[in-house]
Amino acid sequence: MSLDLKASDLAQELGLELRGDGDVKLCGVAGIDDATEGDLGFIRSSKYMKYLESTDASAVIVPKNGDYNGSTKTLLLSDNPYISFAQVLKNHYCPESPFEGIMEGAYVSSEANVADEVTIEPGVFIGAGSSIARGVRIQSGTRIGKGVSVGEDTQIFANVVIEDRSVVGARVILNPGVVIGGDGFGYTQTEMGSVKLPQIGNTVLEDDVEVGASTTIDRASMGSTIVGEGTKIDNQVQIGHGAKIGKHNVICSQTGIAGSVVTGDHVIFASRAGIGDHLKVGERTTIGPMAGVTKDLPAHGLFSGFPAMPHQDWLKMVGMLGQLPAFREQFRAIFKQ
Amino acid sequence: MSLDLKASDLAQELGLELRGDGDVKLCGVAGIDDATEGDLGFIRSSKYMKYLESTDASAVIVPKNGDYNGSTKTLLLSDNPYISFAQVLKNHYCPESPFEGIMEGAYVSSEANVADEVTIEPGVFIGAGSSIARGVRIQSGTRIGKGVSVGEDTQIFANVVIEDRSVVGARVILNPGVVIGGDGFGYTQTEMGSVKLPQIGNTVLEDDVEVGASTTIDRASMGSTIVGEGTKIDNQVQIGHGAKIGKHNVICSQTGIAGSVVTGDHVIFASRAGIGDHLKVGERTTIGPMAGVTKDLPAHGLFSGFPAMPHQDWLKMVGMLGQLPAFREQFRAIFKQ
Amino acid sequence: MSLDLKASDLAQELGLELRGDGDVKLCGVAGIDDATEGDLGFIRSSKYMKYLESTDASAVIVPKNGDYNGSTKTLLLSDNPYISFAQVLKNHYCPESPFEGIMEGAYVSSEANVADEVTIEPGVFIGAGSSIARGVRIQSGTRIGKGVSVGEDTQIFANVVIEDRSVVGARVILNPGVVIGGDGFGYTQTEMGSVKLPQIGNTVLEDDVEVGASTTIDRASMGSTIVGEGTKIDNQVQIGHGAKIGKHNVICSQTGIAGSVVTGDHVIFASRAGIGDHLKVGERTTIGPMAGVTKDLPAHGLFSGFPAMPHQDWLKMVGMLGQLPAFREQFRAIFKQ
Repeated sequence: MSLDLKASDLAQELGLELRGDGDVKLCGVAGIDDATEGDLGFIRSSKYMKYLESTDASAVIVPKNGDYNGSTKTLLLSDNPYISFAQVLKNHYCPESPFEGIMEGAYVSSEANVADEVTIEPGVFIGAGSSIARGVRIQSGTRIGKGVSVGEDTQIFANVVIEDRSVVGARVILNPGVVIGGDGFGYTQTEMGSVKLPQIGNTVLEDDVEVGASTTIDRASMGSTIVGEGTKIDNQVQIGHGAKIGKHNVICSQTGIAGSVVTGDHVIFASRAGIGDHLKVGERTTIGPMAGVTKDLPAHGLFSGFPAMPHQDWLKMVGMLGQLPAFREQFRAIFKQ
Repeated sequence: MSLDLKASDLAQELGLELRGDGDVKLCGVAGIDDATEGDLGFIRSSKYMKYLESTDASAVIVPKNGDYNGSTKTLLLSDNPYISFAQVLKNHYCPESPFEGIMEGAYVSSEANVADEVTIEPGVFIGAGSSIARGVRIQSGTRIGKGVSVGEDTQIFANVVIEDRSVVGARVILNPGVVIGGDGFGYTQTEMGSVKLPQIGNTVLEDDVEVGASTTIDRASMGSTIVGEGTKIDNQVQIGHGAKIGKHNVICSQTGIAGSVVTGDHVIFASRAGIGDHLKVGERTTIGPMAGVTKDLPAHGLFSGFPAMPHQDWLKMVGMLGQLPAFREQFRAIFKQ
Repeated sequence: MSLDLKASDLAQELGLELRGDGDVKLCGVAGIDDATEGDLGFIRSSKYMKYLESTDASAVIVPKNGDYNGSTKTLLLSDNPYISFAQVLKNHYCPESPFEGIMEGAYVSSEANVADEVTIEPGVFIGAGSSIARGVRIQSGTRIGKGVSVGEDTQIFANVVIEDRSVVGARVILNPGVVIGGDGFGYTQTEMGSVKLPQIGNTVLEDDVEVGASTTIDRASMGSTIVGEGTKIDNQVQIGHGAKIGKHNVICSQTGIAGSVVTGDHVIFASRAGIGDHLKVGERTTIGPMAGVTKDLPAHGLFSGFPAMPHQDWLKMVGMLGQLPAFREQFRAIFKQ
């Protein structure tokens, strides 16, 4: 996988303004500080502009609004360098493989409904009543239960499990080892031990959702666990039964979202955040790394710590904690007086 | 999946006393605050009684000992509404599928011993010397190693891995992606790096244990890792080598239990609790969410925080933390005097 | 699995000095406090020497430099009892099974390159351009993508997923459910939601790396995620895209290492440690259980807490926290004066 074109050709392909030598030959891509001669790099924002002169990249995609008068580099000016660079990777490094149909060694129920243009690898299981739309690719070892629907162009990696009655939208990406619609953890305690409430609901992933490796999203007791359109979920995240995750949330690795939580749109959970059951989070709120949420949170906030509090309060508290021993010494001195 | 009967018929089926209109037709189930006309709902305890009048449910299973004189609803009176409602779900929403035997595409060693009434799906692997009792269902992609025994009516979902010599009891439920009897993490550090102690023990799951998706339970170095009868384990829990978990424990998601931990009966770990190796927890003790246990804990306690402390102490401490900055201001004022 | 030899024969096998009755018959192994007659046990260091007289073991491997004049046990004196005992387990309890070749029901691309002496179980998938060296064992349900190389004598358990272009060294052990080279979590936020940066790099595991069950190691955006030689990783660990883990690290269960982290050699992460993206940790530093690292850490340190601080400071701070309520009472008394 490599590039093989001139900077001016790439500028034209991406519809970007070119500055400097357009004849420079590009044969690879790299991070701005790892790049060597022949590489295309990118600078996301003015914060990283210092790398522009030190990099060995032959051409750099840069923010349109910068001042590049002193620069000797070949530059491609973009409204959003990250998106332009992503486009280069997509165009040149992610070739689409042809559809293979239902490969030998896959098990597809005679009562399942599979579209024509798909790839279903050996070792895949598709149960009765499930429907697989066109453009879907399913890697080996994945099990799709009964009555599941999978939307167009969805990509399901190896060893994924999608339980009965789940609904998976279009252009969804499920990474290896994901479990969708697993049994919710619903019990009541009695003197004889735990009694289980059968979990008869399902899980719904709306369009353009992505789910990271080994993440588990339980099905609702009744009704649906829902992950809203465009929400991106990292690896090893746990989402409990009946949660309703809004649209365009970003949920980083190892986060735990308990049952029946409801989040607004554009909510962000940093890595290993946690939130207790039945709580609500307002739109565009961010929950910091390792924070533990124990109360409903308003919209447009930033929260940290356990129990979670406004981030500014947490910073103050953490600052004080380090000073506690010294503080106590002062106090003792006074106390003796 | 739906109900289709009169309230009076359901009362008879469950052996419950009926109040109000027994002719009301029930065609679905729902949570008390989501219910619409035609639904059966339930109220677990007097705490939720306020929902009784506002709900649109056509009939509600309620605690026997309440005062329902003012109520206009059709009521089914139960000693334990949760258990009665679970019974409805089990009777009407969880049909048992017939046994399919060993399906084509499964690999069963000629030296394995598989009972007649089972379902073993395509892509299952069963190694030499393993025995599978009657009533067992094993979904696609699951691997059962050598010398494993699986008890009657146990249900093993897709892509589970059960390593050599594991013992799995009757009526056990293993959700997708579970790993039972994996290699314990046993090393000693030397100047040349880590040297491994081969882990020659096994893992034993007693009867009626349930294990959540992607949970991992390592085998003992020597002897057995044990999970006691009736213990319920949620998703993404890690249990280290040689742990001995008591009966009827409840272990919520993302909890980590290190090697050689011993717990009494009816111990509860809330979500993402953690406990260090070789520690002991007395019976009926509860460990709060995100707590980290660093010492042995007595029976019948409630512990929170890291390092874990009695819950009341933790509440006090957390309360103080928020006041610290104000406290310091006061202190500084005095100090200046 | 059992022993069946005399203590003197075992001493000779291991090249250890024998004290006491060499004719005692050994027929099993056990931990020093679980051992019964006929068992061989071991004592790792002088710290556990108290168990020497109370144990029922028939023979014990002990540190060479102890004083055993009063002991009536049969002893085998070793420079490193842990390593000697590991040798016994390896020699007598871990028989190598013969190679089975590519078993029926495995899918191996015609463009893959598989050496002769291997075991590839049913349900394994090996993609085009991948090469599998001699001595490799791959259990059922594992998927190896395209262009992957797997080195000699590497052992891959069931339901592992190794994504395209990954490089796996020699003598590597991948436990069940591991995901190597999964898609990194790389997005930028726009008003329309998250835009993804295609992750075109790979993951490299050097020789003698071990990876625990359900651990996920993402591939780099560009370049490689690297795990250095001899590093041992426990279950349910998450390693983000572009991380460079040094040699002989020990990473305990549920630890989270964010993208682009760089660690020196011999770094230890205790259970459920976490570290933010782009941070650096110096060689031979240890990060305590549940610690959260938010800054670069120097070499040879010990750090705890969140945000992580030197362990001694953390101990002081934790000690103070418990005293806070009492401290406040004293303070209030003064304040009133």
